[in-house]
Amino acid sequence: MNTLSNPPRVVVVGAGFGGMQTAQSLAQSGAEVLLIDRNNYNTFIPLLYQVAAAQIEPESIAYPLRTVLRRAPRTQFLMATVQNIDFEHQVVETADQLISYDYLVLATGSQTQFLGVPGAMEHAFPLRTLDQAVTLRQHILQRFEQAAREPDPVQRQQLLTFVIVGGGPTGVEMAGTLVELKRAVRRDYPGLNWQDMQIILVQSGDNLLANLPDRLGRYTTRKLRQLGVKVHFQTRVSRVTEQAVEFQNGSVLPVGTVVWAAGLEAAMPAATANLSTARKGKLAVRPTLQLIDHDNVYAIGDLAHAEQNGKSLTGVAPEALQQGVAVARNIRRQLRGKMPTTFSYLNKGRLAIIGGYAGVGKIGPILLTGFLPWLMWLSVHLVYLPGFRNRLAVLLNWLHGYSRGDRAIRVILSAPMTTNPSSDGAQGDRPLLLAKSTGHF
Amino acid sequence: MNTLSNPPRVVVVGAGFGGMQTAQSLAQSGAEVLLIDRNNYNTFIPLLYQVAAAQIEPESIAYPLRTVLRRAPRTQFLMATVQNIDFEHQVVETADQLISYDYLVLATGSQTQFLGVPGAMEHAFPLRTLDQAVTLRQHILQRFEQAAREPDPVQRQQLLTFVIVGGGPTGVEMAGTLVELKRAVRRDYPGLNWQDMQIILVQSGDNLLANLPDRLGRYTTRKLRQLGVKVHFQTRVSRVTEQAVEFQNGSVLPVGTVVWAAGLEAAMPAATANLSTARKGKLAVRPTLQLIDHDNVYAIGDLAHAEQNGKSLTGVAPEALQQGVAVARNIRRQLRGKMPTTFSYLNKGRLAIIGGYAGVGKIGPILLTGFLPWLMWLSVHLVYLPGFRNRLAVLLNWLHGYSRGDRAIRVILSAPMTTNPSSDGAQGDRPLLLAKSTGHF
Repeated sequence: MNTLSNPPRVVVVGAGFGGMQTAQSLAQSGAEVLLIDRNNYNTFIPLLYQVAAAQIEPESIAYPLRTVLRRAPRTQFLMATVQNIDFEHQVVETADQLISYDYLVLATGSQTQFLGVPGAMEHAFPLRTLDQAVTLRQHILQRFEQAAREPDPVQRQQLLTFVIVGGGPTGVEMAGTLVELKRAVRRDYPGLNWQDMQIILVQSGDNLLANLPDRLGRYTTRKLRQLGVKVHFQTRVSRVTEQAVEFQNGSVLPVGTVVWAAGLEAAMPAATANLSTARKGKLAVRPTLQLIDHDNVYAIGDLAHAEQNGKSLTGVAPEALQQGVAVARNIRRQLRGKMPTTFSYLNKGRLAIIGGYAGVGKIGPILLTGFLPWLMWLSVHLVYLPGFRNRLAVLLNWLHGYSRGDRAIRVILSAPMTTNPSSDGAQGDRPLLLAKSTGHF
Repeated sequence: MNTLSNPPRVVVVGAGFGGMQTAQSLAQSGAEVLLIDRNNYNTFIPLLYQVAAAQIEPESIAYPLRTVLRRAPRTQFLMATVQNIDFEHQVVETADQLISYDYLVLATGSQTQFLGVPGAMEHAFPLRTLDQAVTLRQHILQRFEQAAREPDPVQRQQLLTFVIVGGGPTGVEMAGTLVELKRAVRRDYPGLNWQDMQIILVQSGDNLLANLPDRLGRYTTRKLRQLGVKVHFQTRVSRVTEQAVEFQNGSVLPVGTVVWAAGLEAAMPAATANLSTARKGKLAVRPTLQLIDHDNVYAIGDLAHAEQNGKSLTGVAPEALQQGVAVARNIRRQLRGKMPTTFSYLNKGRLAIIGGYAGVGKIGPILLTGFLPWLMWLSVHLVYLPGFRNRLAVLLNWLHGYSRGDRAIRVILSAPMTTNPSSDGAQGDRPLLLAKSTGHF
C-alpha cells in the first residue's frame, strides 16, 4: 500500500468522559483511531467519593477501555503516558513509541491543585483518581481502628476529626457520605463515643455549590448542618501538617484526616508549552474546539477553556461528553474537506447529591431540593455508568447500603499500619495497658 | 468490681476460618472474647485465585470482622499484629498493648514457603493474601498491555508466558483460570497472536492434587492439557530471575510471570519458640487441640499439626472450621471445670475446581469428575462465603463471567508502569517506531 491509501489517523490523548466519547463517536468515520491513556480503564469520576467512603468497589466505576472499543475495529487502545507532543511534525511521544497523527484530540482532564498551601500535598487527601479514592478509604477505615485502640480521649477525638476543604460538589458529597458512614459503622465500635467524630467542611466563599443558584447552596448548608456537619464559610486553610489544619485566622485544629476538594487545574500533557492558555492553565480553544494555532488539534473537557454566551463552561461531565461528540463530527467534516462547526453546549440541568437522602438540582428554570433530586442523581449516574455489570454491581451496593444503613466494603486492603507514618505519629509508641486486672503483671 | 467477678478472657489470634469460627462459637460462653488480626477483615482464601484472575472484586471475598462479631456483645475485635506471647504470664503483646488472657487460641494459619529457591521470593508471585492476589492481577493485566505494545515477537512471547509452580489446588486453579482469562481477553487485543500465550504448570511429583485419589489427579492433568496448559511432572525449579525460570535439569525458560503455589509453612506468631513443633514448623497439639505444654492454649488450622487415625490433616477450610467449633466447646468445658474432649474431623468430602467447566471431587467413596463437581465447588463456596452482599456480588460476577465468557474486572488499579522494575526490564527503553509511514519523520 502506498502512503496515500492509508486512512488518516486520529490520536486521542486521555480516556475520560471527553476522550472516550470522541473515540467512540469516531468509530464509523473511516479514520484509524488511537486512544491513549495512562490507565487501562475509564474512571467514572462522579462516584469516586462513594469508593472513598466504602460504599462501592473501585472496580465498579472503572471500565476497561479495550472493552469499550471492542466493537470499533479501526479503533485501538494504547496504555501509555504521553511524554511529549511535537506539533510541528505531528508526533505524540510516549516512553517507547513515536506516534504520528493527522488529527489530535487532547482530553487529559484536570488534576488536584493545592493552591500553594504548605503541607497540603503531603498530608491532605485529594480525590481525583481511583487510586486516590482507595487510598482515602484505607486511611478513613484505619482511623476508626486506631481510635478503637486509643485510650487517650483527646487523641481519640483527633483521630475521628475529619476536615474537608472545599465546598463544591466533591466537598459536599464527602461531608454527606461521612455522616452516613458514621451511622453505618457506629454499631461495630461499641467502645467508641461517636460524639467524638467531627465532620467539618470549610469553604473560602460565602456559600456551597457556587456553580448552582444561591438558594440551592443555602439549602445544602442547612441540610449538612442538620446532619451534624460543621460548615464554616470565609475560612481559608493556611497550612496542613501531619496532625493539624491551620487556618488563616490563626486557629489550629488537630485532625485525623484532611480531604482536599478545593482546587483543580488543567492536567496538561508534557511539552504542550507555547500553546495559548486561558485561566487556570487551560488551553484556549476556538468556538470549534480547535486550538488557536493548530487547525488539526482539538482540546476538550477540563483541559480546555471553552466559553458560551460569554461565560466559561464549568467542567462537568455532560460538557465533556457533548464536546467529544462535537469534535468527532468536526474531524469527520475536516476529513471530507469541510469546515468545523461551532460547539454549543446543551445544558439539560444540574444535580448535586448531599447525603441523608437529600440532593439539589436545577432543571431549566426549576429548582429542586430534597429526596427527588437525590434519587435523580443516583438514577442518572447509574444510567451513565459504563458497563452493564458495573451498573448491576453499583445498584446492588446501593440497595444493600441504603436499605440496611450499612457499608459492606470496609476493607483495609493494604498498607500495614507500621508503614503509615501518620498513624505512627498519631498513635505514638507508648506501650499501653489494656490489662483486665493489674494483678496479672 | 473485684477481680474475681471479672469474666474469664479468651484471646483468639488470627481471624481466618479457624479463628473466626472460634470467636463466633464462643459468643454465648460467658467469657470475654478478644479476636486479634492484622487485617480488619476475614479473607475467603479459596476464592483468592479468582481475584488474581480478574473474575471477582477483592472486596467480595473480604468480610469486615467487626460486622461478623456485631451480634456478640462480649466479643471484641482488635486490629493489630501480635509481636510476642508470654506464656508464663499469659500476656499477648502487640505494638502498643499488653493483653492478658485466661485462654489463648492460636489460629494464625500458614504462609508461602519458597523452599529455598533463589529468586523465588523476589520474582515469583505468591497467592496467599488478598494483597498478593491484587498484586498478581495487576501484574498479569500489565503483561497483556506490555505485550500489546511490544513489537519484538520473541519478547512478546516471553511477556505472555506464565509458569505456575506447584500442582496442588492453587496451581491447578490458577492454570485453569488463566486459560479462561485468555479466552475472555482475546477479542480485546486484536493485534496479539494468542498462540504466544503459554500456560505452564510444573509439579515436582508425578501427579496433580496429591491429597486426592490418583485417578482425580490424572483426570485433572488430562483436562488441563485439553485446555492448552502444558503440565510438567518431576520438574523442580532451581532459580527464578526477573526474566526466566531455571529448572534443576538445567533448562532455562524465559517467562513474564511466575506464580508460586508450591509450599506453605506455619505462620507462627513471634516468640512462640520453645513450643513443641511437628513437621513444616507446625505446632504439635494434643488430640484435644491443646498445646503439649499449656493446658489453656490451643492451636488450630494450618498452624497446628493435628493427626487423625495416624494421618495428619491436610489443611483445608472445613478442618479449621470444625476445629474452631471444637476449641470453643473445649474452652467452655474448661470454664465449667470439665476436661477438654478429643477433636474428631468429619470429612464431608473434597472438591477441587479445574476450570473450563470441570472439577473433581470425592464424596465418601464416590469419585466425581467434570461439570458436576465444578458446579458443586462453586455452590459450596458461595454458601460458605461470609456475608449476604458478598455472595450476591460473587454470584453476579460468575453469572456475567461464565455466561458471556468475559472478565469485567480487568482494572490495573495502581503501580504505574515506570515503578515496576520488571516491566522496565522486559520492555527496555528503546524508542520504537509505530509510525504510520516513515514519510512523517
